[in-house]
Amino acid sequence: MSFAQPLPLRSGAVLRDYTLMFETYGSLNAERSNAVLVCHALNASHHVAGVYEGDSRSTGWWDNLVGPGKPLDTDRFFVIGVNNPGSCFGSTGPTHLNPATQQPYGADFPVVTVEDWVDAQARLCEALGITQLAAVIGGSLGGMQALDWAIRYPQRIRHCIAIATAPNLSAQNIAFNEVARRAIVTDPDFHAGHYQAHGVVPKRGLRVARMIGHITYLSDDTMAAKFGRNLRDATEPRYTTQDIEFEIESYLRHQGDKFSEYFDANSYLLITRVLDYFDPAREHGGNLSAAFAKARAKFQLVSFTTDWRFPPARSREIVKALLDNRLDVSYAEIAAPHGHDAFLLDDARYHGVLRARFEHIASEIAPEAAR
Amino acid sequence: MSFAQPLPLRSGAVLRDYTLMFETYGSLNAERSNAVLVCHALNASHHVAGVYEGDSRSTGWWDNLVGPGKPLDTDRFFVIGVNNPGSCFGSTGPTHLNPATQQPYGADFPVVTVEDWVDAQARLCEALGITQLAAVIGGSLGGMQALDWAIRYPQRIRHCIAIATAPNLSAQNIAFNEVARRAIVTDPDFHAGHYQAHGVVPKRGLRVARMIGHITYLSDDTMAAKFGRNLRDATEPRYTTQDIEFEIESYLRHQGDKFSEYFDANSYLLITRVLDYFDPAREHGGNLSAAFAKARAKFQLVSFTTDWRFPPARSREIVKALLDNRLDVSYAEIAAPHGHDAFLLDDARYHGVLRARFEHIASEIAPEAAR
Repeated sequence: MSFAQPLPLRSGAVLRDYTLMFETYGSLNAERSNAVLVCHALNASHHVAGVYEGDSRSTGWWDNLVGPGKPLDTDRFFVIGVNNPGSCFGSTGPTHLNPATQQPYGADFPVVTVEDWVDAQARLCEALGITQLAAVIGGSLGGMQALDWAIRYPQRIRHCIAIATAPNLSAQNIAFNEVARRAIVTDPDFHAGHYQAHGVVPKRGLRVARMIGHITYLSDDTMAAKFGRNLRDATEPRYTTQDIEFEIESYLRHQGDKFSEYFDANSYLLITRVLDYFDPAREHGGNLSAAFAKARAKFQLVSFTTDWRFPPARSREIVKALLDNRLDVSYAEIAAPHGHDAFLLDDARYHGVLRARFEHIASEIAPEAAR
Repeated sequence: MSFAQPLPLRSGAVLRDYTLMFETYGSLNAERSNAVLVCHALNASHHVAGVYEGDSRSTGWWDNLVGPGKPLDTDRFFVIGVNNPGSCFGSTGPTHLNPATQQPYGADFPVVTVEDWVDAQARLCEALGITQLAAVIGGSLGGMQALDWAIRYPQRIRHCIAIATAPNLSAQNIAFNEVARRAIVTDPDFHAGHYQAHGVVPKRGLRVARMIGHITYLSDDTMAAKFGRNLRDATEPRYTTQDIEFEIESYLRHQGDKFSEYFDANSYLLITRVLDYFDPAREHGGNLSAAFAKARAKFQLVSFTTDWRFPPARSREIVKALLDNRLDVSYAEIAAPHGHDAFLLDDARYHGVLRARFEHIASEIAPEAAR
């Protein structure tokens, strides 16, 4: 969907003539009261659920959660997935033409923030005729968007479901992002972000960036269980510095290679910055409770015990801030082994929590049906 | 010191005509019973203590521990620091000439291991006329060398002091090393490890490698306390993807820049592999207790609560294996905020443990003096 009205950004810049790619699943009811917005994290897209015809490998990134009969049941809810601007799956981003120059934006794409994304999502909802969302749900960076909806659009969101997220990035979180960015920016093929004009892609940097990210998505335990110290080819070490020796190396290289084939380097820089900059407490002198003063939604927070990127303690900070405002909040701390990635996986207790929550939301929409 | 006798390596290769750089502090007593070997970790050298004349910035890397009146008191002990082969501070390494080709070794330097290093150290001790060390001490990778001394040279070591170390690297540890290696190897200036011949240095890769390493040396808490989310220049964000925004970014870039000026890229690959390959339990079917079956030393283990690279649980694995063998073992788990780096810092409780241990060792050497 194209938007002619410019989008003013937190940075002071303005995004002109932008397009948002989105998908919807299920049907909007007559009251337009059953819409659920799903917010994506770093590297995902608007393609939340289902499989594209003729492409059996195109399963949506949260297909285990979203669909007919699934916890977020598309027989009851109208689910919206939207690709955020600055990303690289069809919505206006760095690979698109800059209307001011008629050249690809590249590194000139304006820095975007969670708030900018949520503003764009709010406009999309308006365009779809939805004045109030039944829920906004997201994990990780997606959870930050859900929180921002509750903070800045309190009348337009009834339930906020924020999973495996944090009220801001820690210094360590920023540090990992920064190393990933340096790997990209110092790749000679980066060309200060205008690699498209040079007909190249900074794949080396993207590979390293993804490998770093991937380590932080998995728990130490998962890595130990899945790969341990297993050698890839041999029972005895081959003693090599540049070749693959351990299984974990093979896995990481594969993840890096795959990622470098489909993800845009400037988008990676932008979206890691979206993470870095999110900090709703900042304009309240660091007081997170004050940030939620106007929130009215009901909240479901979920964290995972082995998530060391956004550990449970970060979710508890949010829970405390919500309780300080006497808001309606449920919090589930799931004992799952999979680290940060757990939010994307089909864990029975985790999905049980979400199923119960969405059944509750559905019952609010159609109370007679729930009796 | 030059060694004409070739050093056979675990990999099957042989190191010919090698040189070991070393320094000593204090005096060897008449009985040659007061020698303490200090083993370095990834990026340190034989220069353990003191300052070189005319270079006030040349303080040894463990100067807070080693010196007259310090916990490892050079008025009582003869302390030896040695640079391990494959490193880049004077001992034979990748920047040196390969006697077979008369070209710099570069990537052809053979893969070395903890065992190879300890063999080289044992020969150095022999050359110095020391048949038994009062103690071997090291932190991190240095601790692995101390453990290997106890395992493979049981008659030649009376005390083993292994700090902030592990019985092997976890999959996550290997993963971080591998990403660092990929950053170096995929730097176009790496030239498959023969960058010397091209007159360049793969500084980009070294910078990224060091930044990754540095994150794992510090605790999340230390980073939060030292840098938090502080912006470097401004009170308001500047909104930039490529420039420095947060203090932590400035710090990491500085660490990376410094490192890339003095450390050799091939040495970095080799020494991360020394870490990866250390696994004394491997040849005992994973049974760490069996690995220590022949050990006779007395052990002092130390770990730090916030060390997430080699957390206390890894030291406890070693303690258990030692106790299984009814060995004399003390273990101190120090509540220190500084993460893995704590082993290099002057923490009162930590240094208190080491001071007491060395006083005990000194009393064994000269029991009448201790009365």
